[in-house]
Amino acid sequence: MEVLPYLNKNKQRFVDELFEMLRLPSVSADPKFANDVVATAEYVKKRIEEAGAENVALIPTEGFPVVYGEKIIDPKLPTVLVYGHYDVQPADPYELWETPPFEPVIKNDSIYARGSCDDKGQMYMHVKAFEIMMRTNSLPCNIKFMIEGEEEVGSSHLNDFLKKYKDKLQADVVVVSDSSMIANDCPSLTIGLRGLSYMEVEVTGANRDLHSGTYGGAVANPINILAKMIASMKDDNNRITIPGFYDEVENYTEEERAEIAKRPFNLETYKKELAISDIEGEAGYSTIERATIRPTLDCNGIWGGYTGAGAKTVLPSKASAKISMRLVPNQSSEKISNLFAAHFKSIAPASVTVKVNSHHGGEPVVTPTDSIAYHAASKAMEKTFGKKAIPTFEGGSIPVIASFKNILGIQSLLMGFGLDTDALHSPNEHYGLFNFYKGIETIPYFYQYFTELSRDAQI
Amino acid sequence: MEVLPYLNKNKQRFVDELFEMLRLPSVSADPKFANDVVATAEYVKKRIEEAGAENVALIPTEGFPVVYGEKIIDPKLPTVLVYGHYDVQPADPYELWETPPFEPVIKNDSIYARGSCDDKGQMYMHVKAFEIMMRTNSLPCNIKFMIEGEEEVGSSHLNDFLKKYKDKLQADVVVVSDSSMIANDCPSLTIGLRGLSYMEVEVTGANRDLHSGTYGGAVANPINILAKMIASMKDDNNRITIPGFYDEVENYTEEERAEIAKRPFNLETYKKELAISDIEGEAGYSTIERATIRPTLDCNGIWGGYTGAGAKTVLPSKASAKISMRLVPNQSSEKISNLFAAHFKSIAPASVTVKVNSHHGGEPVVTPTDSIAYHAASKAMEKTFGKKAIPTFEGGSIPVIASFKNILGIQSLLMGFGLDTDALHSPNEHYGLFNFYKGIETIPYFYQYFTELSRDAQI
Repeated sequence: MEVLPYLNKNKQRFVDELFEMLRLPSVSADPKFANDVVATAEYVKKRIEEAGAENVALIPTEGFPVVYGEKIIDPKLPTVLVYGHYDVQPADPYELWETPPFEPVIKNDSIYARGSCDDKGQMYMHVKAFEIMMRTNSLPCNIKFMIEGEEEVGSSHLNDFLKKYKDKLQADVVVVSDSSMIANDCPSLTIGLRGLSYMEVEVTGANRDLHSGTYGGAVANPINILAKMIASMKDDNNRITIPGFYDEVENYTEEERAEIAKRPFNLETYKKELAISDIEGEAGYSTIERATIRPTLDCNGIWGGYTGAGAKTVLPSKASAKISMRLVPNQSSEKISNLFAAHFKSIAPASVTVKVNSHHGGEPVVTPTDSIAYHAASKAMEKTFGKKAIPTFEGGSIPVIASFKNILGIQSLLMGFGLDTDALHSPNEHYGLFNFYKGIETIPYFYQYFTELSRDAQI
Repeated sequence: MEVLPYLNKNKQRFVDELFEMLRLPSVSADPKFANDVVATAEYVKKRIEEAGAENVALIPTEGFPVVYGEKIIDPKLPTVLVYGHYDVQPADPYELWETPPFEPVIKNDSIYARGSCDDKGQMYMHVKAFEIMMRTNSLPCNIKFMIEGEEEVGSSHLNDFLKKYKDKLQADVVVVSDSSMIANDCPSLTIGLRGLSYMEVEVTGANRDLHSGTYGGAVANPINILAKMIASMKDDNNRITIPGFYDEVENYTEEERAEIAKRPFNLETYKKELAISDIEGEAGYSTIERATIRPTLDCNGIWGGYTGAGAKTVLPSKASAKISMRLVPNQSSEKISNLFAAHFKSIAPASVTVKVNSHHGGEPVVTPTDSIAYHAASKAMEKTFGKKAIPTFEGGSIPVIASFKNILGIQSLLMGFGLDTDALHSPNEHYGLFNFYKGIETIPYFYQYFTELSRDAQI
């Protein structure tokens, strides 16, 4: 294959095109960016088409459209379904960005912008790898693109989409680059992802904000109550206290835990990079385990009362929080959301009323390591990195992975090229140029090995 | 005295003038309203001057100016120092106001506007009562006005002012209408106020917002930690757990508590008016006691993480809260602020760093019931309400009352005409026209009786 010569000749244009997409603030969570989200879908459609895909279209959903495109060179050959997303996380808090989130720049050999890694940068590697294979006449199998625009808000319409287009989407594997690897000199492949339950709660005391002098001490304060309710949801060992929460959690064997512990990890580097004096988590588990194979309960946001400058002696009427739980095999997002809601209501004192709503959820997944796709990806990484990839569990969630298996009947391959330190979902998100180019270089080899190994398996 | 005929003839003008002042958004806490605060001071100066005061001036402080004016008719006669404030609380949350906070309207026989009661409406009663006494030639003694513009932010420059102008401000009593009475058919005089310590805390985890999937479970979440710290500051009996917090709290005798319990109070009406199913407070005390003679710890505001629409799976770097404590005799605001700060720092886990700042504070006060001023006020209220005033403790704070005693050596008389239900510090603050006019009617009688009783006492 002539991957490197073509890549090296077009490096600058590839980055320029990515920059163009990064300038579109495709924040799916916030309605005010709706037009930008659609504009980004149009942009992806155009680029996939230019690269040589056929039947390229924005397929409508109840929410934002899915960008679809395909290149079927021979129905008898294997088919790879590429999944990615063109929407991004909100950029708040804007004031902590060193450069504006939607004005990409290159600093320290990295691209800084919201979505530079998650997932525009990683998704676009696949578009450019496809272009290379097309232009160098080396596409060895069939390819289908399915790039959605609602991943950051829970892919709520994707299950309907998968059901409706089940036949159209048939493939031998789904390839996803929306996860990370351990380090640039330590490639890895993700074999497990956590699931998610995301709740929003509101605690109401009196029917109006009150003077904290006149009523303080005699009437429930919803902020204090909410704090107490949140605090009560973890015990002194940082175990979650929701009844039934751990019932389905898969407990790993000592052998499996020993395998996980082999992943390179330096606690001092970890603490230093985050500027923390100490870590904190569930008693009895290592940091890697806490961040990957154990479930969590984290407040993602909290608000109530007066938050402006100076002092206001108000006893507020309401306090709210966004609380999410990362789930592990074999927890069910729906069941955990229901357990949370029932528990939260049960611990509310009579002095307040509470509302509990569920945002999106997703199921935890484990992907096979004995598959053709895994072996092909492992071989491709070894080819371009010069090192064997390590299988790792990852703490994040990609809710659709479970749906690919349940609805389409297809396993996924999680081949991410980002790093945990890329500040995903944070200010100053960035993606290394090394990683962007290395991904584009590695992907065509994956197609080559995947096609070869599939042929060998048929014989 | 010809109080009522003059009052009745000028009722509409008095309200029109008050409306003019209420249209000025004199929010002292928010720097963006600084010009409006000063404009309000100018307005008060003009009206005091027009009413007949002399030496009227805006006396500068390090913050907003104090409006001063006086009418000395005979140095041998008693002198009343009128204290009030022309600044108001922030109007947030604006969206809960049925009519805009700085566009006063009359609804249900009440004036609706921020400051309508606290304290523009109550303060202006004194200006108009003075006008009546001047125009009807019935001012029986000397009067001094001292109207400040920083009460809602803790009167932080007033102590310096009192020290600097100690001689100029000499008087026999300070009269303050910035408190409430029990009901329109149940007049009362406030004999105790709580003090205040107002803190702001910030909890920091990692040096940036993190992806809650990648780091959740392994790194401290500052919102969860803050919630836990807040929750830990009260025990199951709603007793505050800060070591030493109750050391100086004055415990009332059974007789005194029986006296407090005589104050009319209907729990069902109270709950219904606030739309709550249950009250909540320190075990072993009644609602009136909890709201007046017992100290409190209340969150006035909390914020952290993502608070926009939808879901963002962020593990935030910071979480903050405003936490205030109402204090009772003989607690010291400075000591309690220090105890809070030391305790808050001591309970922070090593996984976070905390900052604690103190906003303003104020000392609790008890005013005498055996004074000439108290007897005069009691008699004046009996004259205009036809009923004896009940002595009551109030839960709010007026930090300068302690300073009047400590710096000027003068006791205060707390003669308020508002109601607890006037929504002070809340959306839809209002002040009854009955209360506004009844205050203007009562105040001249207070001057008359105060002068007469002072003369009797000298004989």
